[in-house]
Amino acid sequence: MLAVDAVNKSNSGHPGLPMGCAPMGYTLWDKFLQHNPKNPKWFNRDRFVLSAGHGCMLVYSLLHLTGYDSVSIEDIKNFRQWGSRTPGHPETFETAGIEVTTGPLGAGISNAVGLAIAEAHLAAKFNKTDSQIVDHYTYVVMGDGCNQEGVASEACSLAGHLKLGKLIALYDDNHITIDGHTEVSFTEDVLKRYEAYGWHVQHVKDGDTDINAIAKAIETAKSVTDKPSIIKISTTIGYGSPNKSDTAGVHGAPLGEEEAELTRKQLDWSYGQFEIPKEVYDHYRQAIERGSDLEAQWNEEFTNYRTKYPTEAEEFSRMLRGELPQGWDNALPSYTSNDKGLASRKHSQICLGALGPNLPELIGGSADLTHSNYTDIKGETGSFQPTSREKRYLHFGVREHAMAAILNGIAYHNSGLIPYGGTFLVFADYMRGSMRLSALSELGVIYVLTHDSIGVGEDGPTHQPIETIPSLRAIPNMLVFRPGDGNETSGAYKLAIKNRNRPSALCLSRQGMANQANSSIDKVALGGYVLEDCEGSPDLILIGTGTELDLCVQAQKSLTEMGYKVRVVSMPCIELFEEQTDTYKNEVLPKSVRKRIVVEAAESFGWHKYIGLDGDSVTMNRFGASAPGGTCMEKFGFTVENVVKKAKALLI
Amino acid sequence: MLAVDAVNKSNSGHPGLPMGCAPMGYTLWDKFLQHNPKNPKWFNRDRFVLSAGHGCMLVYSLLHLTGYDSVSIEDIKNFRQWGSRTPGHPETFETAGIEVTTGPLGAGISNAVGLAIAEAHLAAKFNKTDSQIVDHYTYVVMGDGCNQEGVASEACSLAGHLKLGKLIALYDDNHITIDGHTEVSFTEDVLKRYEAYGWHVQHVKDGDTDINAIAKAIETAKSVTDKPSIIKISTTIGYGSPNKSDTAGVHGAPLGEEEAELTRKQLDWSYGQFEIPKEVYDHYRQAIERGSDLEAQWNEEFTNYRTKYPTEAEEFSRMLRGELPQGWDNALPSYTSNDKGLASRKHSQICLGALGPNLPELIGGSADLTHSNYTDIKGETGSFQPTSREKRYLHFGVREHAMAAILNGIAYHNSGLIPYGGTFLVFADYMRGSMRLSALSELGVIYVLTHDSIGVGEDGPTHQPIETIPSLRAIPNMLVFRPGDGNETSGAYKLAIKNRNRPSALCLSRQGMANQANSSIDKVALGGYVLEDCEGSPDLILIGTGTELDLCVQAQKSLTEMGYKVRVVSMPCIELFEEQTDTYKNEVLPKSVRKRIVVEAAESFGWHKYIGLDGDSVTMNRFGASAPGGTCMEKFGFTVENVVKKAKALLI
Repeated sequence: MLAVDAVNKSNSGHPGLPMGCAPMGYTLWDKFLQHNPKNPKWFNRDRFVLSAGHGCMLVYSLLHLTGYDSVSIEDIKNFRQWGSRTPGHPETFETAGIEVTTGPLGAGISNAVGLAIAEAHLAAKFNKTDSQIVDHYTYVVMGDGCNQEGVASEACSLAGHLKLGKLIALYDDNHITIDGHTEVSFTEDVLKRYEAYGWHVQHVKDGDTDINAIAKAIETAKSVTDKPSIIKISTTIGYGSPNKSDTAGVHGAPLGEEEAELTRKQLDWSYGQFEIPKEVYDHYRQAIERGSDLEAQWNEEFTNYRTKYPTEAEEFSRMLRGELPQGWDNALPSYTSNDKGLASRKHSQICLGALGPNLPELIGGSADLTHSNYTDIKGETGSFQPTSREKRYLHFGVREHAMAAILNGIAYHNSGLIPYGGTFLVFADYMRGSMRLSALSELGVIYVLTHDSIGVGEDGPTHQPIETIPSLRAIPNMLVFRPGDGNETSGAYKLAIKNRNRPSALCLSRQGMANQANSSIDKVALGGYVLEDCEGSPDLILIGTGTELDLCVQAQKSLTEMGYKVRVVSMPCIELFEEQTDTYKNEVLPKSVRKRIVVEAAESFGWHKYIGLDGDSVTMNRFGASAPGGTCMEKFGFTVENVVKKAKALLI
Repeated sequence: MLAVDAVNKSNSGHPGLPMGCAPMGYTLWDKFLQHNPKNPKWFNRDRFVLSAGHGCMLVYSLLHLTGYDSVSIEDIKNFRQWGSRTPGHPETFETAGIEVTTGPLGAGISNAVGLAIAEAHLAAKFNKTDSQIVDHYTYVVMGDGCNQEGVASEACSLAGHLKLGKLIALYDDNHITIDGHTEVSFTEDVLKRYEAYGWHVQHVKDGDTDINAIAKAIETAKSVTDKPSIIKISTTIGYGSPNKSDTAGVHGAPLGEEEAELTRKQLDWSYGQFEIPKEVYDHYRQAIERGSDLEAQWNEEFTNYRTKYPTEAEEFSRMLRGELPQGWDNALPSYTSNDKGLASRKHSQICLGALGPNLPELIGGSADLTHSNYTDIKGETGSFQPTSREKRYLHFGVREHAMAAILNGIAYHNSGLIPYGGTFLVFADYMRGSMRLSALSELGVIYVLTHDSIGVGEDGPTHQPIETIPSLRAIPNMLVFRPGDGNETSGAYKLAIKNRNRPSALCLSRQGMANQANSSIDKVALGGYVLEDCEGSPDLILIGTGTELDLCVQAQKSLTEMGYKVRVVSMPCIELFEEQTDTYKNEVLPKSVRKRIVVEAAESFGWHKYIGLDGDSVTMNRFGASAPGGTCMEKFGFTVENVVKKAKALLI
């Protein structure tokens, strides 16, 4: 009824799911969920993910009823209003107790796979036979929508492979989606599919009233330790509403005053709007004492652990505090222009190898492109598998979108793990939905995106990113790095690791590039800086990134010989440059110097912020072509000659 | 061996799949595929899709061997070279006989679902009990990668629901992906999953040598008419290579000269590099006569059909010619400023209703948001289902990525169908991989993307696009429309329908907007135009789109009253504006007028091309918030007052 009233009051929202899922929500939260309402961040709590995020009034109701300070009855009355803690979909950054930001369907269950991976990895890493300090379940409520989304298919296939026994999904089988009955588009045998993935499956036929059956199924699911579990719970959407239940109409629209009254009658609920009887509070809020006891027990356990295993305990505590270890970046390499030029994907591999031993919390892998992305950690063998959960390399398979969602899940676990994952830059498109959520939810996920331009070569236009870099730069709260040599790659990693509250996308080359004389690890933090300069005020500024940075440097040499005063600005991260002071930005790109050329083997889209109406660009304005990378570069104008030509055209 | 030699010569490519799939490729193309090598566009041909596009030397070899003019032996020797017709992945726009551009995994099988839908729909629409002019199969070769991708899961679930009996997939089960054995990440029971989707499943255990078993399985699959079929064919990747077969090493790297020679020995193949014995050509090229006969028979059938059913025949022929019917756009509505303002999603629904009766080839639907996207065609009921294939409304379910891939598939069918599909604009992220392929492959798909800004309101930041519009504008060869009223929505539809060789993304509002006095359907073709002007040269130009266009108009009124000379430019489609002459562009945005402000409730990213270093913007630079749409607009500065304030700051 809280959901009915809140949606009615805001005249906006989704009452159907909270009404149909109230029995499973009650059962799970009252009888199983181990959490501490007065400390929503207690480490060893079970994680609850409402994958069907539109039903958020379910979780707001449960948070309120079990005594979380983050959701008062006033908050519920302010559902979906400006500045409220009860937004239209659950958001981690708005409401304590929300574990995962959901709404985009399929994301939550896929994040949950990441949460379960994090738990399993930390358990294998820290637990001892006589002390289990990491030991919790990950529970999910998902709907038909989540089960139709491909990202969930990818993630659940991997979860089955990984035998994540502590992942338990409750599938709200209510037969209704926005377009009507699921018969119009979704008639597959969902449980059989999950069986094919290697999950344990159960069916509760009456999810509307049979609390005992729900409880028994959860109990059984918990007892199956070598498989993730899905419990299909058949329910009636909008259960209790005499005229709207079991229709698409109750999915995403208020019941209205009248139907709300009829629902009260049908459910024999004699209380007013937003009224919670004392006995309900009394019952639900036993969770507070239970939670407090659970946390106290765990604290005691951890004290014992600390006594017996002080080194491990310290590492564990440090990770939970979100502190990086002393000297974590000491081994990051720096380079001089005498060092052999390498591809930045290779520099990236070297960085991972340098970080690995000093950063035990680094965990990641690749979507089946390990030996192309170079995402392995030098010196380490084996990967996270059912029998080797202590390993930190993740074989995601050819599942980019699930990879990103799982990386988000590992970050949501909030236990100090630093997740990274690799694929080809062009396939960022596959996982963009989850990359956006990394940014929105302020998760420090590191995306290792190699093969970053037409320099990819022979694989051709399907594999050559043109618009991908600009389209990532357009996402708020994401750092997009395109390092121009070894130092800048080290610098990008340093910043990506440090930025625990925003994701980083590292755009890395397939092909080699020279190391620059004046690049530096630290200057990457400025986003853009003067790499090569002239005497006095420049006639023209060349702005370069990545593999094209050296083109700018070479062109500057030619132009200098011709008597022009040319500056080269390296711009490995536009977002960080934007955060500098106006004074600094004007030092690097003086307002008075309007002759500016950007050189980047990508769409020029977005660069006019720096080149304005008077500048020019050596960029791409079409899809690429299949040919050796060097040929592509030449044919599309990424030559010193062409940069010089364009510069001269501006300078005349 | 052609694959081995071509990959060796180019020193780049994927020999493993063509080697392992040669038996199934031979069997399918020699014994089943109905096609005409001398007329690759013959309508009633079976469609062949190599979903595992990296194995393109398989299809180039088959095209060459069966006598297509598009792939000569010289073309094969030029594999992956600049300007060749044998690019690194199959591309429809490069090579006649390639039905679908593949490479990004999962796309091809999902396109194939669209091809099969197109065939089934046209068959239901045009076939008569005594004349079957539409009657072909869609065959797919897919690998482990395709089966891991979520888009394929979505599409195959829908294909099972739709009982697409003429879709037959050969699954190359070779146990190897780039990261090694599939055991590291992919151990699900694939056939059981397909059974759960409602597919007919078979397993050929020895795909390396048992041609008869492959043929028998295809025969059986053809006989199952009420289910799509998948045949798992267990093969050895790189079959024939003594040292590299059955390893990840043969997936994506040349065998090298030495191993090629050893392979020749093992396979008892005594011919030189690129050498095809005459008897092989003689055998394969029987396809030419068979194909010629097949087409002749079909032509005869169609002549009969034309005699008996002249109206249907004329419509069918017109569609195949790619001609729009006379007067197709006559009913598109126009508006005056006296007409009540509506949301552009509502205008869109009116356009679909106006186009529907006059454009029988219009076919589409929504990813389960029909009543939010307003993608229905007024006056029509029912949808494309197993028992109603003549219907043209598609319920895609909550499957955005599959929707886009299926729309591409319908366009690839190249039979005049005009596909459209709707979802929320923010969920364009889910299907971006396939939207990119629409653009790359020059497919006239129409994306109906509603709820286009923070104006979405209460659903909050997960549902409010900020960066989505700019990120779509960054894609080459895609028209991104954001119409500012009813006339502009009609204009956008007119252009989207006419542009059969590039996709259109229509970004449409949830909330209402005023109809403008000086907007017009036809001016949308200019991309941008002067909507409101001042006397003489303007002091300042306001550039607006969509729901913010009226803000510009209102602000102009205020500023004019204050004595400023202000022009309002409406910019519904940047891409089309860019295609105008410099003269026109300079008329609209005179180089001398540098005080320019863009007003758009999205990231400013990309707009500096018009506002330069001296302009300003009323745009978004962060994610949105959950609150009523009007509140969001106001809080984020989308008010007349704020536009006027920013304008005055520039004008002073």
